[in-house]
Amino acid sequence: MNLVEQMDRIFYPRSVAVVGASANPEKMGFMCVGNLLEAGFGGKVYPVNPGISELFGLEVYPSVAAIPGEVDLAMVVIPAELTLSAIEECVAKGVKGAILISGGFGEVGTGIGADLQAKLKDIADKGGMKIIGPNTLGFINPRARLNASFQYTLSLSQIGNVAVAAQSGGTTIYITHALTNHNVGISKAIGLGNRCNLDFDELVSYFGQDKETRVIVLYVEGLDEPERLIEAARRVTKIKPIVVYKGGRGEEMSRATLAHTGAPAGDYALYEKAFREAGMLAVDSITEVVDTAKALAFQPAAEGNRVAILSVQAGPAIIMADKCREQGLALAEFSAATKSKLKKLASALNAVDNPVDIAWKSDDFNACRQMLKAVLDDDGVDAIIVAAVFYASNMELMRAVVDIAGEAKKPMTVCLDSPRGTAYAEINALEASGVPVFPLPERAVSGMAGLVKYGEIVK
Amino acid sequence: MNLVEQMDRIFYPRSVAVVGASANPEKMGFMCVGNLLEAGFGGKVYPVNPGISELFGLEVYPSVAAIPGEVDLAMVVIPAELTLSAIEECVAKGVKGAILISGGFGEVGTGIGADLQAKLKDIADKGGMKIIGPNTLGFINPRARLNASFQYTLSLSQIGNVAVAAQSGGTTIYITHALTNHNVGISKAIGLGNRCNLDFDELVSYFGQDKETRVIVLYVEGLDEPERLIEAARRVTKIKPIVVYKGGRGEEMSRATLAHTGAPAGDYALYEKAFREAGMLAVDSITEVVDTAKALAFQPAAEGNRVAILSVQAGPAIIMADKCREQGLALAEFSAATKSKLKKLASALNAVDNPVDIAWKSDDFNACRQMLKAVLDDDGVDAIIVAAVFYASNMELMRAVVDIAGEAKKPMTVCLDSPRGTAYAEINALEASGVPVFPLPERAVSGMAGLVKYGEIVK
Repeated sequence: MNLVEQMDRIFYPRSVAVVGASANPEKMGFMCVGNLLEAGFGGKVYPVNPGISELFGLEVYPSVAAIPGEVDLAMVVIPAELTLSAIEECVAKGVKGAILISGGFGEVGTGIGADLQAKLKDIADKGGMKIIGPNTLGFINPRARLNASFQYTLSLSQIGNVAVAAQSGGTTIYITHALTNHNVGISKAIGLGNRCNLDFDELVSYFGQDKETRVIVLYVEGLDEPERLIEAARRVTKIKPIVVYKGGRGEEMSRATLAHTGAPAGDYALYEKAFREAGMLAVDSITEVVDTAKALAFQPAAEGNRVAILSVQAGPAIIMADKCREQGLALAEFSAATKSKLKKLASALNAVDNPVDIAWKSDDFNACRQMLKAVLDDDGVDAIIVAAVFYASNMELMRAVVDIAGEAKKPMTVCLDSPRGTAYAEINALEASGVPVFPLPERAVSGMAGLVKYGEIVK
Repeated sequence: MNLVEQMDRIFYPRSVAVVGASANPEKMGFMCVGNLLEAGFGGKVYPVNPGISELFGLEVYPSVAAIPGEVDLAMVVIPAELTLSAIEECVAKGVKGAILISGGFGEVGTGIGADLQAKLKDIADKGGMKIIGPNTLGFINPRARLNASFQYTLSLSQIGNVAVAAQSGGTTIYITHALTNHNVGISKAIGLGNRCNLDFDELVSYFGQDKETRVIVLYVEGLDEPERLIEAARRVTKIKPIVVYKGGRGEEMSRATLAHTGAPAGDYALYEKAFREAGMLAVDSITEVVDTAKALAFQPAAEGNRVAILSVQAGPAIIMADKCREQGLALAEFSAATKSKLKKLASALNAVDNPVDIAWKSDDFNACRQMLKAVLDDDGVDAIIVAAVFYASNMELMRAVVDIAGEAKKPMTVCLDSPRGTAYAEINALEASGVPVFPLPERAVSGMAGLVKYGEIVK
């Protein structure tokens, strides 16, 4: 069984055992079983605990060995000192992957913890089993309705094409929730914790060939062998974008990341250089993770950096032009033919330079569609950003974006602001047509910058 | 009547005339009357249009002169070439302020437009009337239930203490909507357009003494006499923070801002230096406008830059520590006494250094409250950031924040993530206690940076 087959079985298990299942609602062992059931997982769930006989109406087994059927995935939520025998049992049972949620290993800074982790690795390596963690959250696979984590809110994630792998469970949650709040679906999201014998390079390789994944998001703190990730990324970035956010940037933070998941953070400048050379998109905040991943999840990469801005309001257009310049994007120069088309279509008051001023025409579907088409057809334009404040009449412009999206050969992003969710229907219509919507001008540019930078990488 | 009395009358008018009121729902003159009525304005509304006799059940007057009662505020939505006589009529009627929504003045780049604007200024100056605009959105005053603009969504703004003044109507809308979406209330929000005879310096002076305003937000593109704003800001920043975002930063953008509201953008580096010297908080995105204004609207300034981070998850704590360093905030060093208190309160597994690891204790209200108190009591700590992912048991930590907020003498911000609005009640409880909540780690730090920087300014 190669890595891909094994990871497929882990992400699509036929059965999941929870070692340390508990009837106490405050315990992780209770939450893990509850989340599996509540998210609607269709496979078998086997709670394991020698002290109880039933949980949520399911039979509880005294040990993994006692489970009658095959077990593909195990979640292990017992004190660290008991994990060795549990992991041995899992190997003996033929389990493909064990999520080791328990802490108390490499991250605690004692010889005992590190020794224990080394022993676990040895057992798992020899037995051909993958350990996810220890000291981790677990993972979700929304397509399988599988929430194999202790965090119930992850069941609110929608099915999509962004894969998330993070060294921190907390950051996995923040990123996944933020993607959810921005209407971006998840293919898989996984916390790696101490990366006992499943590390970033393996996940990057796996997600690289995973048909359900279009964009890979990584949150990295420290790596023992950074060159393994860099090597995997160099291959995968040719076919899929990898957005990476590195935490633990100051020297003083190396101590914190060591205590967190057992690896010092290292020098960020070196990491950033290596990330960029491998074709990864290195970003500087979770907001930027979300905006970049969202644009790449919805739209093709840009063939160049010449951006056209079409905006109903001039102030936001000016902000977007500023941000384009900061991000290394150029404002496209329109051809004479385009300018003449726009001149005919726009209001006499409007600028037909870039940024194009749509004011006074935003309520005219046909004029908007033709202006969009004129700009899309211009050979000097690589990508388009469209912006409007939410206002009934401006929504004709947005209808035109939806209408032209199917035939557009160049990436588009939209900035559509909306107070208290009032533009819900309009945003959904745009995103259903494949055009990602961002709530603020700078963020529509940030998303577009991801499309332009990834375009440069694949060239 | 001095400026303050006049602006009070404009922001709290007893009556509003709409010159150019229209029965056509697609016209600005229809929307302006509709917005006044729909927002629930309690004063008199006088539509003016010689061609119609009734609108929304209101009597329509043929001219401003024909209105029987006094008129404090006029909204003028007629073609530019007709505005001179309308403004003359307003002056004759004793109108205190006229919102000139119409475009076609200084921003169009023709001598005719500039001439017209100069004539308007002359009439208004001599008549003691303020012109808001031309080429503008208007304003809102949520306390007066007054939406004197063409944008109906601004009526969704809540009452609060942030004043917004922007050179762009579109940016006024984006900022006001974004504040609304982040539970930040508005004292007044106004689009200044071409700033005919009402400019930033006057508004800064007015908001400086306005009891309903605690934080002033400005969006500036270009200024004819920047020193006037700088002078006013220098006085006001001693008593209230001014958050300023400058649009039109590249040279090529000077042309765009000139065409937008009639002033070239100028060199950003010079502006930024002047802003900072005047004690203004210069920021680089609308997101940062919102985060900075929100923190300042809810919390007192910090007395120093030493920040304590208390987080249930280690990854987000590491991200926040990185961001503190980037923003010039220091991680506080706890005293031996504080460390010893924390040691007793925290789980044996937890770090009691800064960032403080709350994991395994986030479900214990008393332990959380005592840990918060220990850190608040430490003389080496100036400010506190608390973070957790949304999870029922973590909310005991948040209850402890709410409980201690009333007695805390140091500013606090919270990062609480939440998918699909699930933490609605918890966020509301925190913000009702005066503690602002941010959805992502970097943004809780961005807000705190505003409190620290403003603390340095007032010192």
